Amino acid sequence: MGGDLKAKFLEVYSVLKSELLNDSAFEFTDDSRQWVERMLDYNVPGGKLNRGLSVIDSYKLLKGQELDDDEIFLSSALGWCIEWLQAYFLVLDDIMDGSHTRRGQPCWFRVPKVGMIAVNDGILLRNHIPRILKNHFRQKPYYVDLLDLFNEVEFQTACGQMIDLITTLVGEKDLSKYSLPIHRRIVQYKTAYYSFYLPVACALLMAGEDLEKHTNVKDILIEMGTYFQVQDDYLDCFGAPEVIGKIGTDIEDFKCSWLVVKALELSNEEQKKFLYENYGKEDPASVAKVKELYNTLKLEDVFAEYESKSYEKLINFIEAHPSTSVQAVLKSFLGKIYKRQK
Amino acid sequence: MGGDLKAKFLEVYSVLKSELLNDSAFEFTDDSRQWVERMLDYNVPGGKLNRGLSVIDSYKLLKGQELDDDEIFLSSALGWCIEWLQAYFLVLDDIMDGSHTRRGQPCWFRVPKVGMIAVNDGILLRNHIPRILKNHFRQKPYYVDLLDLFNEVEFQTACGQMIDLITTLVGEKDLSKYSLPIHRRIVQYKTAYYSFYLPVACALLMAGEDLEKHTNVKDILIEMGTYFQVQDDYLDCFGAPEVIGKIGTDIEDFKCSWLVVKALELSNEEQKKFLYENYGKEDPASVAKVKELYNTLKLEDVFAEYESKSYEKLINFIEAHPSTSVQAVLKSFLGKIYKRQK
Ligand SMILES: [Mg+2]
Ligand SMILES: [Mg+2]
Ligand SMILES: [Mg+2]
Ligand SMILES: [Mg+2]
Ligand SMILES: [Mg+2]
Ligand SMILES: [Mg+2]
Repeated sequence: MGGDLKAKFLEVYSVLKSELLNDSAFEFTDDSRQWVERMLDYNVPGGKLNRGLSVIDSYKLLKGQELDDDEIFLSSALGWCIEWLQAYFLVLDDIMDGSHTRRGQPCWFRVPKVGMIAVNDGILLRNHIPRILKNHFRQKPYYVDLLDLFNEVEFQTACGQMIDLITTLVGEKDLSKYSLPIHRRIVQYKTAYYSFYLPVACALLMAGEDLEKHTNVKDILIEMGTYFQVQDDYLDCFGAPEVIGKIGTDIEDFKCSWLVVKALELSNEEQKKFLYENYGKEDPASVAKVKELYNTLKLEDVFAEYESKSYEKLINFIEAHPSTSVQAVLKSFLGKIYKRQK
Repeated sequence: MGGDLKAKFLEVYSVLKSELLNDSAFEFTDDSRQWVERMLDYNVPGGKLNRGLSVIDSYKLLKGQELDDDEIFLSSALGWCIEWLQAYFLVLDDIMDGSHTRRGQPCWFRVPKVGMIAVNDGILLRNHIPRILKNHFRQKPYYVDLLDLFNEVEFQTACGQMIDLITTLVGEKDLSKYSLPIHRRIVQYKTAYYSFYLPVACALLMAGEDLEKHTNVKDILIEMGTYFQVQDDYLDCFGAPEVIGKIGTDIEDFKCSWLVVKALELSNEEQKKFLYENYGKEDPASVAKVKELYNTLKLEDVFAEYESKSYEKLINFIEAHPSTSVQAVLKSFLGKIYKRQK
């Protein structure tokens, strides 16, 4: 059933793409139509698609029964809007970070003849979202709420990206800027809103719910998104490379990782000095020294403690929710990430 | 009165900025609040503000009487949304073009410590527009139409930027791609929609009009915007530098200018070869040769002919419009640009 759903989801991608390539609001030239098609295929469907697929899952759980074809199509279209949003953020993030690869291929701006045109391609990806929404939701009573939702979440993500960028300014490696509150803020705004809250909020709107009445759902999902990113930071150092599919470089990259902010919190003056000297250095000896300190500070145990505390807190919140279908949605999300190894 | 209006308009900027710097959808740090304030002051209010101011003017003409304070504030807020949109496009365009200066100061991304963070700043500028709209128009009956309008115009502008970028690919100087139809398309989408149609469309929405019933107004404004850009291309070569405030470099920059597409159209084989050899070269001798050809082909006369034909066509269209207040709006726009020297 999972594979079947994914196949249906990918069919919807083809439909949406073809609508965008024939959008009457613009007179395409052959060259520009080909450009957009290649750009979409390169950047949109190649990820794990978890965010997009979770809109369909969540909507099904909220509805409490199987979806008809129209409902599958519409929830898939919203799922794809989130994937488009993510593609837009990633294309631009890779430019800003000067990254080299993404999802096992060169970053889009590194592809020959693309270069800085990728900035406008990011913009185009972003602009496709309201086109999709207008094509398929203009007559729905929740249309304006969808627009507001996507606008607000995009704004929050861009703000999260901003504090990430100005806190971790390249060339100004300043560990004193890193702390648990700033880490929480970066993660919450840059990742949690669009990855965790947005899919469920889309499903709630489709189900006719008023988002203003679901601020506790938002809080729970933001908390879950934060936990997810802490796991990500943890796995970057302590995960098995053959399982997570890459070799972590957060230490070399001077990332504002949960591990380094925890280490800073737990270090004595001498250990802090040691961290300042070795964090963010390319050479393997420095990286090894940082990992050694992480071990001395028992960060694996600290993480395990954080993980079980988070889980307990989340479960309690979820079970206090008055609606069992909303509980089912939230538990499904939590189930997918709790104690994940990749 | 003009100066007074501009002063009031600038006061509205301060109000909008302060709302954005205290937006409850994001938890600012002191650093990030300062960053956004500096970024806004650097990029938003420094232009001629014609687009923004024209929303207030247009709305006044549509209403047919003086505006009260609330109406001035709201039409100014929409005017500022257009200025924010323009700032967003310009910040990113300068990155893509590798430009050095803008409005007499270094491009934002060239400012020390900004660099590629400017990409996200462009995104932030864009994201401020729906925040402003939500703050001030959420309860208006035309709120959803405003969102649709800004979304559609942004989409068209991004598409125009795309064909500009892929037609005039750096490093692939290929004049055979340049023609009147492609020039028209670039200009129409990249400039005319947001500079000419958008201000009037905002005023029409405020006046309670249905934009679907005003497709002819759109057509006229797009035509006017095209004419405006042709003037821009013309003045780049034939304008007086002391009047236009800069020395044109469209020939050196291999721009898809109206002059070069006209020259290509009017050239015989030999002249075409000559153009191919000299267009887009830095050295002054090549530039002079191109200008010489422009003179041989009498492009000044061709432009004068285009200008009077355009004017006649536009006036006829405008006078065929059933509403005298709409006519007044359109004539006011045309009056501001007809036979301009800068
Ligand atoms: Mg990155
Ligand atoms: Mg980044
Ligand atoms: Mg990571
Ligand atoms: Mg430029
Ligand atoms: Mg450009
Ligand atoms: Mg020009």
